[in-house]
Amino acid sequence: MPCAPLAVSLGDPAGVGPEVIAKAWAVRAAHLLPPFFAIGDRRSLEAVWAGPIVQIAHPQDALQTFDEALPLLQVDDPGDIEPGVPNLAGARCALDSVEMAVGLARSGAASGLVTGPVAKSQLYAIGFRHPGQTEFVAERCGVAAENVAMMMVGPDLRTVPVTIHRPLAKVAEGLTAELIVSRARTVARGLARDFGIEAPRLAVAGLNPHAGEGGTMGREELDVILPAIHQLREEGIDVTGPHSPDTMFHAAARAGYDAAICMYHDQALIPLKTLYFDTGVNMTLGLPVLRTSPDHGTAFGIAGKGEANPRAMIAAIALAGQCARARQAA
Amino acid sequence: MPCAPLAVSLGDPAGVGPEVIAKAWAVRAAHLLPPFFAIGDRRSLEAVWAGPIVQIAHPQDALQTFDEALPLLQVDDPGDIEPGVPNLAGARCALDSVEMAVGLARSGAASGLVTGPVAKSQLYAIGFRHPGQTEFVAERCGVAAENVAMMMVGPDLRTVPVTIHRPLAKVAEGLTAELIVSRARTVARGLARDFGIEAPRLAVAGLNPHAGEGGTMGREELDVILPAIHQLREEGIDVTGPHSPDTMFHAAARAGYDAAICMYHDQALIPLKTLYFDTGVNMTLGLPVLRTSPDHGTAFGIAGKGEANPRAMIAAIALAGQCARARQAA
Repeated sequence: MPCAPLAVSLGDPAGVGPEVIAKAWAVRAAHLLPPFFAIGDRRSLEAVWAGPIVQIAHPQDALQTFDEALPLLQVDDPGDIEPGVPNLAGARCALDSVEMAVGLARSGAASGLVTGPVAKSQLYAIGFRHPGQTEFVAERCGVAAENVAMMMVGPDLRTVPVTIHRPLAKVAEGLTAELIVSRARTVARGLARDFGIEAPRLAVAGLNPHAGEGGTMGREELDVILPAIHQLREEGIDVTGPHSPDTMFHAAARAGYDAAICMYHDQALIPLKTLYFDTGVNMTLGLPVLRTSPDHGTAFGIAGKGEANPRAMIAAIALAGQCARARQAA
Repeated sequence: MPCAPLAVSLGDPAGVGPEVIAKAWAVRAAHLLPPFFAIGDRRSLEAVWAGPIVQIAHPQDALQTFDEALPLLQVDDPGDIEPGVPNLAGARCALDSVEMAVGLARSGAASGLVTGPVAKSQLYAIGFRHPGQTEFVAERCGVAAENVAMMMVGPDLRTVPVTIHRPLAKVAEGLTAELIVSRARTVARGLARDFGIEAPRLAVAGLNPHAGEGGTMGREELDVILPAIHQLREEGIDVTGPHSPDTMFHAAARAGYDAAICMYHDQALIPLKTLYFDTGVNMTLGLPVLRTSPDHGTAFGIAGKGEANPRAMIAAIALAGQCARARQAA
C-alpha cells in the first residue's frame, strides 16, 4: 500500500516558502520525492511560479495528480499578498495552513507534515503565543513542548540540542539530568520508529571545553551529564559520553553514533550547519505525527525574485517521505 | 637569502612527538617542508624510528644536513625513556627542548618554533606553573599571556577563541569589550605580519543563539560585542558581526573573512575540528617569534606503535615555514 501523501504547508505567503515548495515539486522525479500536496493560498504560488497547480479537495487526490501538477489544498483566502511584504492576513493564512496540515497528519490522511517558514513577529501580532511552529504543532498534537526534541538532520550527522533558545550564560542552569534523559529517550524512540534503527547509538556531548577535564574546567559532566548517561544505560539505551565537544563531529567520529545529544543550541547547530548549510533538516521527534521543516526562515528580502534555494525544502520532503515509509514498514 | 631553519621541539619523549616529527621529515619533499631541526633526546627518536639522524651543534648546520638526515640538537640526556610511559626526567627534557627552541627563535638562529606535544600533568609535577606551553613560551618572550592569541588554522578557516579554558557557565562573565578588542588587534597584526594579508577581514561571532536576536536571547551582543566592534572599526580594522554563530562557518561564509573571532573555546574549536580534525594547527599570535603546534596531545596510549598520524605535525611545520617566508618578505 502506498503511503498517504505528505502535507506541506506553504508557510508565510510573502516568504520564500511557496517558491521553494514549487521548485521542489518541479524536481520531484530527480530527487525521488514522495507524493505531497501544498496547503496554503494558491495566489502565493502563482505570484512566484508559472508551473501547473491543481486544486484538490481531499489529500488522497494528491496521489493521482502529483505527477502532473502541484496539488494544493486551499485555505481561507488571505487577500492580496506581495512577495517580500508580510502582513497579518498572510500570517493568519500561514497559521491556518500548519493547523490543517497537523490535523490531516493526525487523521492519517497525510503521512506526515513538512512546514514552510513562518515569520514569528507576524504571528505574535495575531495573538500567537508559542515560541515557534514546533511548540504549536506539539500543542495541537496534545504533547507538552518539553517532551518533544528538535533533531537537526544532515546526510551523515544528526544532532539534538537538549537546551535550545537560552542565552549562553543560562545554559548550565537549565541543564538537568532529567532533561537530558528525557530528550535522549525521545531521540532513541524516534530513531527506532522513524529511521528503522533498532538499537540507536547516542553520543552525549560534554558541556565544557574538553568535557570538563575531570571536573577541573566545569563540573556539569560529573554532576549532571554522567548521572543522565547512567540512567539511560540502565534503561537499555546505547549511550556513550560525555564526549569532548570539539572532537565528536569529524567524519570518523560521526560514524560512531546515530545521533549526538548536545547540551546547547550552537553545540548542535554549529557542526550541522558548518557541514550542511544548505541541506539541514529540522525534525521534531516525540510527536504522534512526522514533522520536518527546512532549516531556514522566510527570507523576505529575496522572496519573489526566483533566487531562493530549494535544497533544504527538498531535503525536508525527502526525509519525511523516508521516515513515513519506515513507519509504515514497522 | 634562505630563511633560518625551524626549531621543532620533540615534546614529551614518551609521547608521539618524536614519531610524528620523524615521519614529517620522511615526507619533507612531497610536502615541500622547509628545513627544520628537532630539539630533544636522540634516543626518543631512535626508539620509534629507524631513519637517519644527524646530531648538529648549531641551527644553521641544519640547512646543509636536512636533505640527508633529520638534524637534531641534543638536550640534557633524560636517561632511559620507554614510549608510552612518561616520567619526570622526560618532562624535564620536554621543557628544556621548548626553552631552547624559544631562545633560538628569539635570537634569529631559528625562523620559528614548532612545539611537539607535552603532558601537562607531568610538567606540573616538576614545578611548571603555566596553564600550558603557550603561556610558557609567552613568558620566555616577555609577553603577558593575556596579550597573545591562540589561532586555530585549517586550509580555509582560521578561528580564534577570545576566552579559552573556562567552564561554559563562566564564559559570559569573562567576556569584556577590552578582551575582544585586544584579541582582535593581535589577530589583525598577526594576519598582516605572518600571512601577508594587508587588510585582514575579521568576522566576530555572537555569544548567544542567533547572536541574541536583538537582545531577546541574551544581551552580550549589544552590551559587549558591538562596542568592541565599533572600537575596532575606529582603529581602522575591517570587522563584521556579531554573526549568528551557527551560520558563519559553512564554506560560502568562510570565504568572506580571514579569521573568525570566537567568544569561547568550543565555538572556535568545533567548526575547525569538525572540518579539519587531522590537520588543524594551533598558532600563537602576539609573540615576537613564530610558533605553531599540531593540535593533538601526547597520545601515550599509541606511542611507540608506529600508528601516530603525522598530518597535523606536517601541517604545523608547513604553516610555520610559510609564515617565516611571509615575515622575511615583508
